[in-house]
Amino acid sequence: MEQTDEVASLSKKAQKKAERLSKKMAAASLSTAATAGGDLAEDALAANYGDVPLLELQSKAITGRKWKKVSELDASLNGQSVLLRGRCHTTRGKGKIAFLILREAGHTVQCVFQVEDNVVSKGLIKYINSLSKESIIDVEGTVDIPSAPINGTTQQVELKGRKVYCVSKARPVLPFNLEDASRSEKDFQKAEQEDLQYVRVNQDTRLNNRVLDLRTSANQAVFRIQSYVSMFFRQFLVSRGFVEIHTPKLIAGASEGGAAVFSLDYYGQPACLAQSPQLHKQMAICADLGRVFEIGPVFRAENSFTHRHLCEFTGLDLEMEIKEHYFEVLDILDELFVFVFDGLHQHCSKELEAINEQYPFEPLKYLKKTLRLTFEEGLQLLKDDGIELDPFGDLDTASERRLGTLVKEKYGLCVTCVVNVVSCLRVVQILFVTFGRYNTDFYILHRYPLAVRPFYTMPCFDNPQYSNSFDVFIRGEEIISGAQRVHDPELLTSRAEACGINVKSLSTYIDSFRWGAVPHGGVGVGLERVVMLYCALNNIRKASMFPRDPTRLAP
Amino acid sequence: MEQTDEVASLSKKAQKKAERLSKKMAAASLSTAATAGGDLAEDALAANYGDVPLLELQSKAITGRKWKKVSELDASLNGQSVLLRGRCHTTRGKGKIAFLILREAGHTVQCVFQVEDNVVSKGLIKYINSLSKESIIDVEGTVDIPSAPINGTTQQVELKGRKVYCVSKARPVLPFNLEDASRSEKDFQKAEQEDLQYVRVNQDTRLNNRVLDLRTSANQAVFRIQSYVSMFFRQFLVSRGFVEIHTPKLIAGASEGGAAVFSLDYYGQPACLAQSPQLHKQMAICADLGRVFEIGPVFRAENSFTHRHLCEFTGLDLEMEIKEHYFEVLDILDELFVFVFDGLHQHCSKELEAINEQYPFEPLKYLKKTLRLTFEEGLQLLKDDGIELDPFGDLDTASERRLGTLVKEKYGLCVTCVVNVVSCLRVVQILFVTFGRYNTDFYILHRYPLAVRPFYTMPCFDNPQYSNSFDVFIRGEEIISGAQRVHDPELLTSRAEACGINVKSLSTYIDSFRWGAVPHGGVGVGLERVVMLYCALNNIRKASMFPRDPTRLAP
Repeated sequence: MEQTDEVASLSKKAQKKAERLSKKMAAASLSTAATAGGDLAEDALAANYGDVPLLELQSKAITGRKWKKVSELDASLNGQSVLLRGRCHTTRGKGKIAFLILREAGHTVQCVFQVEDNVVSKGLIKYINSLSKESIIDVEGTVDIPSAPINGTTQQVELKGRKVYCVSKARPVLPFNLEDASRSEKDFQKAEQEDLQYVRVNQDTRLNNRVLDLRTSANQAVFRIQSYVSMFFRQFLVSRGFVEIHTPKLIAGASEGGAAVFSLDYYGQPACLAQSPQLHKQMAICADLGRVFEIGPVFRAENSFTHRHLCEFTGLDLEMEIKEHYFEVLDILDELFVFVFDGLHQHCSKELEAINEQYPFEPLKYLKKTLRLTFEEGLQLLKDDGIELDPFGDLDTASERRLGTLVKEKYGLCVTCVVNVVSCLRVVQILFVTFGRYNTDFYILHRYPLAVRPFYTMPCFDNPQYSNSFDVFIRGEEIISGAQRVHDPELLTSRAEACGINVKSLSTYIDSFRWGAVPHGGVGVGLERVVMLYCALNNIRKASMFPRDPTRLAP
Repeated sequence: MEQTDEVASLSKKAQKKAERLSKKMAAASLSTAATAGGDLAEDALAANYGDVPLLELQSKAITGRKWKKVSELDASLNGQSVLLRGRCHTTRGKGKIAFLILREAGHTVQCVFQVEDNVVSKGLIKYINSLSKESIIDVEGTVDIPSAPINGTTQQVELKGRKVYCVSKARPVLPFNLEDASRSEKDFQKAEQEDLQYVRVNQDTRLNNRVLDLRTSANQAVFRIQSYVSMFFRQFLVSRGFVEIHTPKLIAGASEGGAAVFSLDYYGQPACLAQSPQLHKQMAICADLGRVFEIGPVFRAENSFTHRHLCEFTGLDLEMEIKEHYFEVLDILDELFVFVFDGLHQHCSKELEAINEQYPFEPLKYLKKTLRLTFEEGLQLLKDDGIELDPFGDLDTASERRLGTLVKEKYGLCVTCVVNVVSCLRVVQILFVTFGRYNTDFYILHRYPLAVRPFYTMPCFDNPQYSNSFDVFIRGEEIISGAQRVHDPELLTSRAEACGINVKSLSTYIDSFRWGAVPHGGVGVGLERVVMLYCALNNIRKASMFPRDPTRLAP
């Protein structure tokens, strides 16, 4: 079960030799990694390199050898022998010396192999030169502090290599080079000035070969940040008494209404994929769970090809009992997102740096107490800027973005201008107190027109044309939608009917409110949007590991 | 927008009165809860009770009043005035006194209202008697330590009530009574002896009205435990460097093979719902994420009506690079589940007690280092017990259960018998050292026949009829499946073909291994099964909030 046929660039001689030696030697290396003396005529040090046969990788033995991570290598390990497993990022050989950049999870270290009696043979140098990029290799060597700083690796120490074994060979021809996929706009500009020709890897090529694309340092960082976002989300909510729930994705009726729903046959019954956990998270509140959250997939069969829509994404949802006012939800949300942003700032500096390296961005500006504007105030800001909109319509993407800019500009620069537009006494008070600090990429717009919100949204007590609802924006793009919900079954029914929803398909949902229901509210957040906008990435697909859009169902 | 039409049992007189008063009074109560003096001729204290109109609950005002939780009430609050929101669990009035059991999230407290000049009027007593069970009510009163302990409530203090307002009325006739749904087998036995007739609420009635059913103390506990299980699962894995991922549920080909797949149309392309995150979590490993986990829904279109199968359940999945041996996965798993079980033991005593009250169970027995037996050893145990099975076939449910009993019995009781059957030297050694401690409900069976495992399972190095795979059992039922995976693309292709899988539909998956792949392994756990078997519940539907089986798509 050897994989030798895959490395076309391997010279035939070296290949034959490797085949002959690899099995015996790799076996020796696996049983006693420290003592792999050679006794073969061709190369007395042949046991120090070679392909590991698959059989040796089928859980044959537990040797107790310890591997270090590339990211763990630093000056404190100077002089120590270490064993690493990673990818062959690049190799460069000249005569009696070979340089191999070993990459593991986006971290790189330079390994130098130099011919030396009884340590490194010419055969090993040749073997290194035969390795295809992206192959998985084990390297053994001694940590060393180089005399001059190394360019192009993340680790500042290097490795004096002694042994190298290939665990899994990559095809010699890849869909694209990782180096090409890792370049920033700045690199391209520099190349142009220097008359260099760099290959640009376009988005479709990346996504068609996503497993390869994900290996860049920036992408490694993006998905670690995504993991942190949901970790902080949960940590905070659990600390506030929220219970994590898992609601069904296979449901009888559309949860959000409209046509954007995937349908399927469920043992002869028509079924939908949930467009959100909306109905069931509210039912969990009716079931006395008090405060609940869910992290799970949501499905939208929209025929959208924008930079911010996906057909499947990860919803961060919460729903909670409220005692008096939906601002109780906003208060939780406020603290929650400050907790998430602070957490990323504190724990992910390396990841943010790696993303910045390829996709430079301004750090997100946010306040400890998030700015809240009413929808009317937002429209007024836009009006003052020359954009007049339907007072009971929704914002489009362009006006959302413009409003984001206006909020950031106006609220930081000119308090008198703000006082003119913001009539709400409370906001003016806060403005005076914190004058000059309202420079924020993150704000809340609330009291939306009822007509543009889902049927389960609670109308305002003083004007039923408005609703107790809100959107939250990062850098002028919506990432969160939320509201107080209608907990009264009669009002809920009439609202659903008014919105043209098939009430029958929602009967078990509406019935849940007939057995006593607490006033409640909640929000839905798009995880990919949070990551995209926190890092100012230009496309939601960059924040989804295996994105789904109307033409993309694989990988 | 009042809900008065729903309470048929309310006497007409009381109802009319309530209607007249409630709006004004509830408004007063909401604006200043502490000072709600009455000025009406009928009842000078009429402001102390009544229905709150919906308008008042539409986020009208923020009063700053503080609510306590029923679960927070204890003797330390003796003499203090508190405000509570909960459900009207039961009421009982006699003359000038009314007893109301208030329930919140499964916790109950007795509220006593006694007619007293300038404090509690007869009208209030009548109003309490008119309240329908399960209605949401606000109660204000003073915490009191009763002279004799209270039967039938979870809190040992009581409340001397002064005010009561109904926030949301439940229909007077419910599908079943919460008290009936909360009874244990012991209650039924006792009732029989005493010639009482208790109503049994069968499973379908419960599930058809799941929102009501979930309100029992036992169910409240079950879903809090479920939330804890995934919290501990994550906490441990994050501490071990695992990255949380979200893989697509909409995929082009079946992930596990076989016919048990839900199909749908995806913009004109045939698509499936993922039967597991198997393919994509392995692809995340090929994408250099090193160690990943996912918590998300998995879909199985099996036509099963057993006590342990669902068509949609929550998968706890992990996948990790291994250096040498799939026991590295078992080592993580071992620690992980001991962490989860220890965590439940330490943090969920109240929840476990609540479940035990209705569904008594033996606490789970587990070892700090989980017992590992090979499949062959398992078959030998069964053979010695008179059950002969195909050495290369799978275990059925009955033999799994029997084996669980045998392991628990034999390994705790008779070391000589164990020595006879267990040939593996290592196990015998451990047995002698820890003689008498092998009394476990939790063990691992590994080295399964290759033929009964999915195509991506790595064969054993020494015998390709066996595989580097394992199942983990709680109380004789499988909860976890795992294995080393095939990381070689050629072997993977031939294994898929041998298993009759359409290799073409898996091409992006198999291609992921052509660009270098680390040896790796992982596991899939069913969250509902963990909860069901940890608590020894007799049906998986009890551990799924809104279960899905071939006939159940709602609620």
